[in-house]
Amino acid sequence: MSSDIGVWLSEELRAVDDLLNEHLKSKHAAVNDVCQYLSKYRGKMLRPSLVLLSWRSVQDNSEVPGSLHRAAGVVELIHLATLVHDDVLDEADIRRGGQTINSLWGNEGAVMLGDYLLSSAFHLCSTIQNTDLNILLGEVTNTLCAGELVQLYHRDDLRLELNEYYQIINDKTASLISASCKIGGILGGASELVVESLGIFGRSIGTAFQIRDDLIDIVLDEGSAGKPTGKDVAKGKMTLPSIVMLENDPSCLPELQKTLDSGDLCRLRKMLVNSSTIPVAQEKIQLLVKEAVNSIQAIQDAPAGKLLANLARQLSKPV
Amino acid sequence: MSSDIGVWLSEELRAVDDLLNEHLKSKHAAVNDVCQYLSKYRGKMLRPSLVLLSWRSVQDNSEVPGSLHRAAGVVELIHLATLVHDDVLDEADIRRGGQTINSLWGNEGAVMLGDYLLSSAFHLCSTIQNTDLNILLGEVTNTLCAGELVQLYHRDDLRLELNEYYQIINDKTASLISASCKIGGILGGASELVVESLGIFGRSIGTAFQIRDDLIDIVLDEGSAGKPTGKDVAKGKMTLPSIVMLENDPSCLPELQKTLDSGDLCRLRKMLVNSSTIPVAQEKIQLLVKEAVNSIQAIQDAPAGKLLANLARQLSKPV
Repeated sequence: MSSDIGVWLSEELRAVDDLLNEHLKSKHAAVNDVCQYLSKYRGKMLRPSLVLLSWRSVQDNSEVPGSLHRAAGVVELIHLATLVHDDVLDEADIRRGGQTINSLWGNEGAVMLGDYLLSSAFHLCSTIQNTDLNILLGEVTNTLCAGELVQLYHRDDLRLELNEYYQIINDKTASLISASCKIGGILGGASELVVESLGIFGRSIGTAFQIRDDLIDIVLDEGSAGKPTGKDVAKGKMTLPSIVMLENDPSCLPELQKTLDSGDLCRLRKMLVNSSTIPVAQEKIQLLVKEAVNSIQAIQDAPAGKLLANLARQLSKPV
Repeated sequence: MSSDIGVWLSEELRAVDDLLNEHLKSKHAAVNDVCQYLSKYRGKMLRPSLVLLSWRSVQDNSEVPGSLHRAAGVVELIHLATLVHDDVLDEADIRRGGQTINSLWGNEGAVMLGDYLLSSAFHLCSTIQNTDLNILLGEVTNTLCAGELVQLYHRDDLRLELNEYYQIINDKTASLISASCKIGGILGGASELVVESLGIFGRSIGTAFQIRDDLIDIVLDEGSAGKPTGKDVAKGKMTLPSIVMLENDPSCLPELQKTLDSGDLCRLRKMLVNSSTIPVAQEKIQLLVKEAVNSIQAIQDAPAGKLLANLARQLSKPV
C-alpha cells in the first residue's frame, strides 16, 4: 500500500510538471528561452508533494481534481521564484550543479524571470476561482518577502537572538511549506482542525528543513552539498549554531566578529566544533520532526499520512 | 464642474494613498524601514487616477466603494514594484531626485522590496473577492514581465523592427495602463463595449506615454528630466527614432552600431537630428492621443470623461 502511494505520487507530480510546462509556455521566444534554464532549478518538488499528500491523507478518492494540480503548481512556482531571486541576492554562479540564470542572463534576466514566475503563480492560483486560496497565497508571499527583508536587515548583526532567527526562518521558509500542507487539506475538504494540524506539520518540517539547510552550509563542502557552501558566513548571516555558541559563551564575540568579517568558513567550523553547538542544532531538528509527526497522528492511518510522517523523519538523519 | 471633478479626484487619491500606507504597514521594523524609501518613488499616481476617473466616467454616484480604492491601490503597487525592479536592472542611483532603494539597501533589498510590493498587490486584489479581477491582474503582470524579458532579449539588437518595438512597449507599459482604465469601468458596472473602449483609451495613452518617455531619455539632460537620461543608448536599447532612422536609411547601420557600442548620447542625438526622426515620434504620439480621445467619445459628456481626454492631450505637448 505504501508503495502504491509512492506510485500515485510520482504520477501526480508528473501531471503537475506537465501543467507547469504548459502554463509557462509563452508566445514570446525570449520567455520560452529563459524558462528553459529553469530545469536547473527544478528539484524534488517537495512543496507540490506536500500539497498532494496532504490532500490524499484526508481523501479516499484517488482521482485528483484539476484544482489540486494547479495549487501544487502554484506553490512550486513561488518556490522557483524565490530560488531565482535568491541567486541574485547571493550572486551565486552554481545551483544544483548547473549554472544559475543570473550568471547566464545577468541579474536583469534573473530579476525579471523571478517576477514572471511570481506573476504566473498568482495567475494560476486565480484560475482556481477560490478567493480564500488567493488571500492565503498573498499572505504567505507577503510573509516570505518580509522574512527575507528582516534577514537582510540583520546582516552582520551578531546580536541576532534565537527567537528572531526562528521568526526569520519561519517566515522565509516554513510559511510556504506550511501553506502547501494546509492547501492540500482545504482542497480535500478537511475539517478546520485537520487543516490546522497539517499547517503545524508543515511549519515544523519547514523549520527543521531550514535549520538543516543552514547546517549544511556550514558543515559540508561544495562537492558533498552539490552547491556552494559557506555562503552564510560570507554574507555575515548568523544561524543557529553560532547564535547558541554566543549565547552560551559571550566571550567569543570578538573572535566570531573577526570570523564573520573575514568570511572564513574553516575558522567558523573550528569554533563551532569546539563549542559543541552543531549537535544542539541536530537535536532541535529531531525535536521538530517529532512535533511534526505527532501533529498528524489523526491521519497517519492513511498511506499518504504515513508517507508524510516518513518525509519528516528523513530530516532527522545527520547532515 | 471640471474643477469639482479635480477636487473629487484629489480627495479619492488621498484615500488610496492612506490605504496603501495602511496596507504596507508591517509588524517588522525592517519592512517599515525599507518601505519608507518608497516615498521617493511615489509620483503622480497616474494609474490610480485612471482607475478612479474611468469608474466615475460611467457612474453617477460620487460615493466610491472600498473595492475601487483597493483596485486603485493594486495598480499603483504593481507600478511601484516595476520601478523598484527597473532600478535594479538599470543600476540607477537617482530617481525623482532622490536616491534609489538599491543604492541605499543594495540590489538585494531592492529585489526583495519589489517582490514584497508585487505580493502585496496580489494580496490586496484578492481581498476584493472578485476572481475575474484576480485573473485580469495575473494576465497583466505576466504580460508586463514578458515585455521586459523580450526587451532584454533584444538588447544590442539593431535589427529590432518597429512592430516588435510596439509590442514591447505595449506589453511592458501600456498593458497596465489599459488594465487600470478597464478595471475602473468593470467596477463601475459599465457595458462590455464601454469597458473595451476604456481599454483602448488606456492602451493608446500608455503607448504614447512610453514613446514620450523614450524620447525624453534621448532629448533631455538629467537636469530637465529630473532623472538620469541616456540610459537607453547606454544599455543598447533601440527606441522609435533610431528604428525609423535605420529603416529610412540602412546605410547608417555602422555608425549607429558604433554609437550604441560606445553609449554616446551626444552622437546619437546628432544622428537623430540629422535624420529628422524625432518629429516622427512626436507625430506618432499625437496620433495615439487622437485615437485615445476618439475611443472614449461616448463618455465625454461626463466630467470625468472630459478629464480623461485632457490627460491624454497633455501627452501631445512637445518634449
